[in-house]
Amino acid sequence: MSDQYDRVSTDRRALMAGAAAAAAAGAFLSPAAASAAAADIAVIRKAVEADKADAIKRLQEWIALPTVAAEGMNVKEGPEYMAKIAREAGFTTAEIIPTDGVSGVFATLDVGAPRWVGVYFMYDVKQFDPKEWSSPPLEGRLVEKAPFGTVMVGRGSTNSKGGQITLLNALRAMRATGKKPPVNIALICEGEEEIASTHFRQIATHPKVLPVLEKCEGIYVPGPAQDRLTGEVSFTLGAKGPVELQLTVDGAKTGIGPKTDIHSSEKARIDSPIWRLVQALATLTTPDGNTPTLDGFMDKVRPLSAREKELIAQLAKKTNEDAIKQAYGNKAWIDNLSYEKSIERLLSQPTINLQGLVGGYTGPGGKSILPSKAEAKIEIRMVPNQTYEDTVKQLRAHLDKRGFQDVAINVSGGYDPTETAEDARVVQAALAAYKKMNIPVTLSPRSPGSWPGSLFTQPPVNKPAIHYGVGFGSGAHAPDEFIVIDSANPKVAGYVDATMAQVQFLYALAEMK
Amino acid sequence: MSDQYDRVSTDRRALMAGAAAAAAAGAFLSPAAASAAAADIAVIRKAVEADKADAIKRLQEWIALPTVAAEGMNVKEGPEYMAKIAREAGFTTAEIIPTDGVSGVFATLDVGAPRWVGVYFMYDVKQFDPKEWSSPPLEGRLVEKAPFGTVMVGRGSTNSKGGQITLLNALRAMRATGKKPPVNIALICEGEEEIASTHFRQIATHPKVLPVLEKCEGIYVPGPAQDRLTGEVSFTLGAKGPVELQLTVDGAKTGIGPKTDIHSSEKARIDSPIWRLVQALATLTTPDGNTPTLDGFMDKVRPLSAREKELIAQLAKKTNEDAIKQAYGNKAWIDNLSYEKSIERLLSQPTINLQGLVGGYTGPGGKSILPSKAEAKIEIRMVPNQTYEDTVKQLRAHLDKRGFQDVAINVSGGYDPTETAEDARVVQAALAAYKKMNIPVTLSPRSPGSWPGSLFTQPPVNKPAIHYGVGFGSGAHAPDEFIVIDSANPKVAGYVDATMAQVQFLYALAEMK
Repeated sequence: MSDQYDRVSTDRRALMAGAAAAAAAGAFLSPAAASAAAADIAVIRKAVEADKADAIKRLQEWIALPTVAAEGMNVKEGPEYMAKIAREAGFTTAEIIPTDGVSGVFATLDVGAPRWVGVYFMYDVKQFDPKEWSSPPLEGRLVEKAPFGTVMVGRGSTNSKGGQITLLNALRAMRATGKKPPVNIALICEGEEEIASTHFRQIATHPKVLPVLEKCEGIYVPGPAQDRLTGEVSFTLGAKGPVELQLTVDGAKTGIGPKTDIHSSEKARIDSPIWRLVQALATLTTPDGNTPTLDGFMDKVRPLSAREKELIAQLAKKTNEDAIKQAYGNKAWIDNLSYEKSIERLLSQPTINLQGLVGGYTGPGGKSILPSKAEAKIEIRMVPNQTYEDTVKQLRAHLDKRGFQDVAINVSGGYDPTETAEDARVVQAALAAYKKMNIPVTLSPRSPGSWPGSLFTQPPVNKPAIHYGVGFGSGAHAPDEFIVIDSANPKVAGYVDATMAQVQFLYALAEMK
Repeated sequence: MSDQYDRVSTDRRALMAGAAAAAAAGAFLSPAAASAAAADIAVIRKAVEADKADAIKRLQEWIALPTVAAEGMNVKEGPEYMAKIAREAGFTTAEIIPTDGVSGVFATLDVGAPRWVGVYFMYDVKQFDPKEWSSPPLEGRLVEKAPFGTVMVGRGSTNSKGGQITLLNALRAMRATGKKPPVNIALICEGEEEIASTHFRQIATHPKVLPVLEKCEGIYVPGPAQDRLTGEVSFTLGAKGPVELQLTVDGAKTGIGPKTDIHSSEKARIDSPIWRLVQALATLTTPDGNTPTLDGFMDKVRPLSAREKELIAQLAKKTNEDAIKQAYGNKAWIDNLSYEKSIERLLSQPTINLQGLVGGYTGPGGKSILPSKAEAKIEIRMVPNQTYEDTVKQLRAHLDKRGFQDVAINVSGGYDPTETAEDARVVQAALAAYKKMNIPVTLSPRSPGSWPGSLFTQPPVNKPAIHYGVGFGSGAHAPDEFIVIDSANPKVAGYVDATMAQVQFLYALAEMK
């Protein structure tokens, strides 16, 4: 499962709109430091502007080399290129970290600053079919696209090379102007994000990597994170953790039911795999399909804190319930909850969702068969303090206890929920940087979607992990993926401002108390 | 639903094998009558043999004119042709009976005999795609097909023109030899069998039709009914009645759940149509998926009689449990029943079968959506004294009572169970005719499949209804449908014997006490 960018699409509409809320950011800089930083930043901005044309070419060159782990595409060239551009950006070490899958890259830039920050990059991209694109997916062509302005169209433009390169270019500009980065940087990169970060743990726990990560204030994921209309950033302090799995029942494998589709009249004396799946599924939720009844699953669900409820109350006030309902088409929230309570449920409750069902005859009308097999596609989303490992174990035990040993579980991905304390320095630095740039921020206790921040926030790394950046891009897993280069909307950052936002963050983190 | 021929495929393997059992036939003919009939029959046989080449051409000509109600193909030409060949066979009246759909045909041959018999024909055929056929589906080509012998390949060859034409040709041969049919015949034909006999009731209750049917001993459906290996006929005294329906849940229509597929994280606060379908389904059976729990549904299920149990015990002895289990691949019958008890369950218990499930994402792996709709394809098979009307009402009430008003029921077909008393004259005549031809018969209290015999056995017609015939055909709804013309297996009838079997039946019915 790879829906790291959920929050930039679905959640946004739900969770952000209206005015800024950076008031929560407790940043406080000494006047002298602030003034020195402001002078440096102004100089750096000029260099970023001067470099823009070359920066665009470098992004196009990176897009032209797509790594697609699922297809084994450029799995050797990808990390080599990643290490090269890290070195060119000023990282003093940049090593390829082998894994049992696609290699990662770990780079460091130690300028002797008091603080370290970790940065996460993915250099792989989603599969693409050039036939579906209006301009070649590997060209990175600049096109005018209303109402956004000038955008770069290309696979990886927004997910995630376009956002990542702003940090590299920020570092280049600092070097060009003789400004030492205000913090030391540890850059950890993988090439398997789109296949569920299968071997990322091997990179993060590598003996050359883990000790450096342990020195960091936290890890951040750079990327364009603004709303396309309001320019607002939805800043989440965590995310649910998913387990994506398929439940399958197959008479050919179990001997319970027929081995092939047979005539339906035999149902009277032969077990039905498809019915067994339905009955097994039905035990997993309340009769309304809304609350998980998986044995033990709800035990560790942590109630919302007073502060979380306070943030949710702010969210409810800032967003438009009617507009959301109109977009979704639902008459009411579950249990006829009020809007505020619906957001509480959205952010605090785990889910067992049916993504799809398939089995037997699926054409028009009917067909007199007793099908031999069926599959349910399920995704469970967990909240603190539930864990991936517990949930997978609970599911097997739950089904076995009810006699559904013939229902097979195929787990296709997942990881723990993630959360980062609001008072973490990386959080406060991000909020301070946004505030300095007059970017409105809506603070949310948790994304109802998922990203694998737990790879950092859980042992052995145990560090705060956040998303940070400005700008806008879209089509992460679709044709004509793009990122805004020159923004027609004054509220949304283009390339130069997005690059400067990286500079702002590094300074803000250095200066944070 | 159109699985009139279920019993010729599925049931056969289960229910017939081994030696003959025509002992149950209580036929007793007076020696003189038997001798006169035997002489007539011998003469008629010569005429049938002499007509064979022309008879094949006539069948090819009929096959060349396919009526497909679902596609509006030849819906005017089909009944006209049906009436024409009925007249040519000797029927003195042959009228087109208009309905709200495709017209039927009603023909009579009143020779002033003391008894009438009704015959059911369908002149429509299943759709076909010539690309899937090894010889043109409308040509009726004669090909050598091991191990069957010479067969005619064509759409409608076995379902049902090839079997029906044997009766027409038997009547032609009688006329050619100056032999008056021993019974009067009422021929009732429809052109919508493959779309669930949608308007058949309008034909059967037509003021020109019903009074004649009411005079009949019973109605029979002619067709090839022998096992391909043993030549045995499985003779059933009834069949289950089906309700075929789809349950659908669609947020766009109900406002319960989203109107389109939305991001799966919203499951935490928005109802899931696909979950609602699963939970609604789960209320319809016991947790093992095997016994209906639809409110009130089981109340009218009539237990097996002593005679029915006796017939089943005979079936169990004559058939091979291990061979059936090997074919199906099931380790055990439901509830680990003995073989005999499994047949009792098969023939006595109603079923709620899931033919298929489809909803949401159905490709490989998973996809982070909360689907807006889902569908379950269901077929309910009823036994006496359950009825189609009761069942449809019970289902709606059952779902409503549990709050599933958003689960829509689309009934796509169905009819009541059918049964005919073992001592009915048409049954005894059929058994006597089989016996005379040394065709082994296995008598079964009921087919676990379905055919719409209840259109005759229920009001307003209220007559016994049976299948009768010999020969073998296959591929009723598949490419390369065929019927055996010259049989390589001495135990299985070819065209001439199949035609003579029709003659035998008419004489047996006339002579029955």
